[in-house]
Amino acid sequence: MLAGLEVIQTLNDHHYATRHPVEVVVWTNEEGSRFAPAMVASGVFAGEFALEYGLSRTDLNGVTIGQELDRLGYAGMRVCGGQPVHAYFEAHIEQGPILEAEKRVIGVVQGLQGQRWFDCTVQGMESHAGTTPMPRRRDALLGATHIVQAVQEAALAQAPYGVGTVGQLIVHPNSRNVIPGRVDFSIDLRHPEDGPLKAMAEAVRAALDRLGELGLTGTLQEIWYAPPTSFHPDCIAAVRRAAEHLHLPHMDMISGAGHDAKYLAQVCPSAMIFIPCKDGISHNEIEDATPEDVAAGCDVLLRAILEKATE
Amino acid sequence: MLAGLEVIQTLNDHHYATRHPVEVVVWTNEEGSRFAPAMVASGVFAGEFALEYGLSRTDLNGVTIGQELDRLGYAGMRVCGGQPVHAYFEAHIEQGPILEAEKRVIGVVQGLQGQRWFDCTVQGMESHAGTTPMPRRRDALLGATHIVQAVQEAALAQAPYGVGTVGQLIVHPNSRNVIPGRVDFSIDLRHPEDGPLKAMAEAVRAALDRLGELGLTGTLQEIWYAPPTSFHPDCIAAVRRAAEHLHLPHMDMISGAGHDAKYLAQVCPSAMIFIPCKDGISHNEIEDATPEDVAAGCDVLLRAILEKATE
Repeated sequence: MLAGLEVIQTLNDHHYATRHPVEVVVWTNEEGSRFAPAMVASGVFAGEFALEYGLSRTDLNGVTIGQELDRLGYAGMRVCGGQPVHAYFEAHIEQGPILEAEKRVIGVVQGLQGQRWFDCTVQGMESHAGTTPMPRRRDALLGATHIVQAVQEAALAQAPYGVGTVGQLIVHPNSRNVIPGRVDFSIDLRHPEDGPLKAMAEAVRAALDRLGELGLTGTLQEIWYAPPTSFHPDCIAAVRRAAEHLHLPHMDMISGAGHDAKYLAQVCPSAMIFIPCKDGISHNEIEDATPEDVAAGCDVLLRAILEKATE
Repeated sequence: MLAGLEVIQTLNDHHYATRHPVEVVVWTNEEGSRFAPAMVASGVFAGEFALEYGLSRTDLNGVTIGQELDRLGYAGMRVCGGQPVHAYFEAHIEQGPILEAEKRVIGVVQGLQGQRWFDCTVQGMESHAGTTPMPRRRDALLGATHIVQAVQEAALAQAPYGVGTVGQLIVHPNSRNVIPGRVDFSIDLRHPEDGPLKAMAEAVRAALDRLGELGLTGTLQEIWYAPPTSFHPDCIAAVRRAAEHLHLPHMDMISGAGHDAKYLAQVCPSAMIFIPCKDGISHNEIEDATPEDVAAGCDVLLRAILEKATE
């Protein structure tokens, strides 16, 4: 948002007139931390969600987004969405370690990963850790270790863009001297293309089928699917040209996180600009970026906007 | 306890006089469910624990064993321990699946497994499941899967008696879209001999050392060690002879669970008799044994006691 204001101020300082008007947008509830889902306002703007749906989302205390916007005086008068947009640019820290590792200042973002979320359960049989011989065990945790490793291998097989994560895992009954009877865990698969994303899911499913050899059963339930997003070639090119013009080391990349640009790309030509962040850390109090990199990102944003706003 | 009373009643019914007196003992707090540690009364009898220590163990409400024995009138007058015991026999369900699977009625128990309990931690680095490429991850859960499998392999390498279990496992921060930064878990290793038990622990430690290849560190802390217990050859032989005399299918075996005989074996010749239990299930409301197997166990107990009480 500050980058957008800096662009406007720079244009005003130089009395620079564009063919298309330039607007800065702060999308309500991008993170989704208080109100789920994330990116709800850009989703309403793009027609992904109905306005009533967006306004009626509640926090843990039952307060709605609509009530809070009214209370703060931020509800506004304009209709949300529906107007034509010539181009949309969004600048962001990378939230990952690639630019820092590759010593690049600008990420020319090609699009957002597609994402599939699964709930997985491995079922075995609880039994006594002392009296049950190894060949007679049906250890659900042992089975789960093979699935966790299969997720890793499925992602590595789709290098460099495929990522797969088991972030949440619960053992039942989770007792020191009881062989686990059931393990529940999450699987998060991401890839910028649908084909490899499907192949990753199939590899995990095949690993689950092999659990029968261990006397176990596995179930996999898909709970969320977000298709891959490709940004507009013209907007991507505008970002790349800006970085080249400014002699900034840059590279093409894919966003691993979600952004408002995901929904905007459904209704208008869009692209994103990434800058490095310290140690790739984000959503943490130690999140950091250098003033030089922030300034470079603003410069690229200015040039990319100018290219599209004057054509 | 009922088996012991049945033996006494049978001897009395037949006016059978033995050279040594036969006593039936019900050891207080064998399970340790309300008061930790388990087998505290037999431990006091055998000198493993001081009497004051045993009496002062508390439940979750702070009530002590001593207070409850006084309240129930079960404190008794006799000194606990110190008297000579010619032989000790304990009959029990197997609490495991081996006798049932092998179609044997009597387990001639050779001793109790030694046991080593560890707390293990694998440390990696929390990071974003979407933005962190696979080669840059330090996934503590992925590391933990290798240790869980190493525990399995270490036990299989000490077949048929070695068992190894990871029963408790906690993932941090346990969030669907965060790569696990730390995993804490228990390791339970058991074997009837100290050498193989040590080899199992060393195999697990070697696997932890290899975590460095994944950018992870591992720590292993031993929190409990119970040495293996071997029962007395004469008492074991008395049990085997009784089973043979009664033409009962029998087999030598090792107890995977703890029993009062563990402590008694420290102060007198001891042995145990196992009978099958349905599906190997114990410590569960569906624990079950057939009347025929229970009667067979009583018969073996009677004959074994008679052999030692009349010699």
